[in-house]
Amino acid sequence: MDFPDFSLDTSLLEKAKEPEPEVIYDLLIVGGGPAAMSAAVYAARKMMNLAIITKDFGGQIRETSEVENWLGFQSINAKDLADSFEEHVKGFDIPVSLGASITEVKREVHAFKVLTDDSKIYSSRTLIIATGKRHRPLNVPGEKELVGRGVAYCATCDAPFFKGKKVVVAGGGNSAFTTAVDLLKVGAEVILVNFIKGWQADESLQERMKQTDNVNLLDYHQVVKIEGKDSVTGVVVKNRENEKEEKIDANGVFIEIGLLPNNEPIKNLVELNEQGEVIVDCSCKTSVEGLFGAGDVTTVPHKQIVISAGEGAKAALSAYNYLINKFLI
Amino acid sequence: MDFPDFSLDTSLLEKAKEPEPEVIYDLLIVGGGPAAMSAAVYAARKMMNLAIITKDFGGQIRETSEVENWLGFQSINAKDLADSFEEHVKGFDIPVSLGASITEVKREVHAFKVLTDDSKIYSSRTLIIATGKRHRPLNVPGEKELVGRGVAYCATCDAPFFKGKKVVVAGGGNSAFTTAVDLLKVGAEVILVNFIKGWQADESLQERMKQTDNVNLLDYHQVVKIEGKDSVTGVVVKNRENEKEEKIDANGVFIEIGLLPNNEPIKNLVELNEQGEVIVDCSCKTSVEGLFGAGDVTTVPHKQIVISAGEGAKAALSAYNYLINKFLI
Repeated sequence: MDFPDFSLDTSLLEKAKEPEPEVIYDLLIVGGGPAAMSAAVYAARKMMNLAIITKDFGGQIRETSEVENWLGFQSINAKDLADSFEEHVKGFDIPVSLGASITEVKREVHAFKVLTDDSKIYSSRTLIIATGKRHRPLNVPGEKELVGRGVAYCATCDAPFFKGKKVVVAGGGNSAFTTAVDLLKVGAEVILVNFIKGWQADESLQERMKQTDNVNLLDYHQVVKIEGKDSVTGVVVKNRENEKEEKIDANGVFIEIGLLPNNEPIKNLVELNEQGEVIVDCSCKTSVEGLFGAGDVTTVPHKQIVISAGEGAKAALSAYNYLINKFLI
Repeated sequence: MDFPDFSLDTSLLEKAKEPEPEVIYDLLIVGGGPAAMSAAVYAARKMMNLAIITKDFGGQIRETSEVENWLGFQSINAKDLADSFEEHVKGFDIPVSLGASITEVKREVHAFKVLTDDSKIYSSRTLIIATGKRHRPLNVPGEKELVGRGVAYCATCDAPFFKGKKVVVAGGGNSAFTTAVDLLKVGAEVILVNFIKGWQADESLQERMKQTDNVNLLDYHQVVKIEGKDSVTGVVVKNRENEKEEKIDANGVFIEIGLLPNNEPIKNLVELNEQGEVIVDCSCKTSVEGLFGAGDVTTVPHKQIVISAGEGAKAALSAYNYLINKFLI
């Protein structure tokens, strides 16, 4: 911050063994999804001295095709939306380490030391972790190639695009069943494919599904291949009992076999829940003073673009208030 | 919801003395600001049977001029932004009671009965209260007329527009002082005007402010008039000690004398904090089962458009999950 009479006291920062970074930022944002980008916009407008470390901008938005639930747009191409967010952030003069990941975070007395995989060291008084989640992929041929063209990971985002279509849902837990419910509601025909023997979803949800038309339950089956050129046309599944393969004509595949929080560099520093999510309160505070969490990497419920953007704004304003209280007054 | 095998059991709903409403909604959204509109979009895409009761669409967005912190837009006219939100909502086939307010809410066994000021009765299994806050106005000539043209209520939103300008801040508490800090940072000259004798902001913040150039502190003064035709040109203040009036040439007036949550119809139903805000957890649940809160009327920190939009989405998805668990499975 460059407010004249509110200079920060830097003398308390412990000297590290590494060469001391020249700049001590007010805020370092780690991540490039909606939470991180929204945090950056809010922090920049508060004239905080900040930097961003991220592999890329857009996050999980770039895994979907159309977005119909970003307020203000009946429908917007996901790439266009991500690009508009990115442009907004780049409209501010914020240093960005693009293509970098953080490998280690150390809490010092009044600042965090952050190491990146390109061997840079950052120092910052506050930190926002907005590294998101990654989908556990099936790792089958056709999956990567057809993301956003039939291969989907978010029913709330994408189910409405499969009205009247035939869709395979890979997974056997609650999120797979909820995805099936969302698809059935838009009039899709659903084939649930469960790798493990025995469904893991709540019994009641299983019972309902068994009584419902337009659902086919394939237990102990494995998706081995997703077929299609411009969009998904079929899915090859293997019966794990008898090893027989079968091709299902389908227009879509929802992959609901879990999400993994990208918590690696901070998992020994901050409190996580059982799923590995960073525990935050309603103002995005974590268990570590000065460390804030925003978006899908945290315990915030319902992973959605607009929710993450809101959380990012909250985290930035909470970091700002923390600095005001801690260092400035 | 119109999913075939998931019909809701309506027999448990107690008969009220009023004529029974024909429709029992899945969700009733009360309010028309960003939280309510975002909730509506999410609920509609979940195919919930919902209705909206609101005086108008746009909420507090319509009190500002330009918005620079809605992700994806470097800058957007506030009216255009509010209009785009409204259009998005109206793209779905949702019944809207426009111009109406709720006057009473009753919790029945499995539904809420809601009465409006135009004597309509609604019945709904879940309810989202997103009625926002209203600014405590100064109630002086020129205030209403110049809103968005020099008269502002949100430093985070509007301070950057007053770079190098002279600005009066009405108020003597922390939010007035924080507004002053935000304005000083963009290089504005600030005159703080406090109605009550003695400043209410934290001592430390007061001390800092007294040592800062470009701030003039007028204690025990009253703003009596805001002058200007197309935009603010001056502010008349009265010294309450000697009753002498003085005109200050200024380009802006920030009014920071408090916000009032619009909690009236539900204040006896649900737990509120000391400020009258509806207490919500991080998933927008209130103390009453089936009743969710979103946006500025709640305890959510940092009142911002994108935060409210995120909270609205959360509330809708939480209401959806509640219905799934309570009535469908």
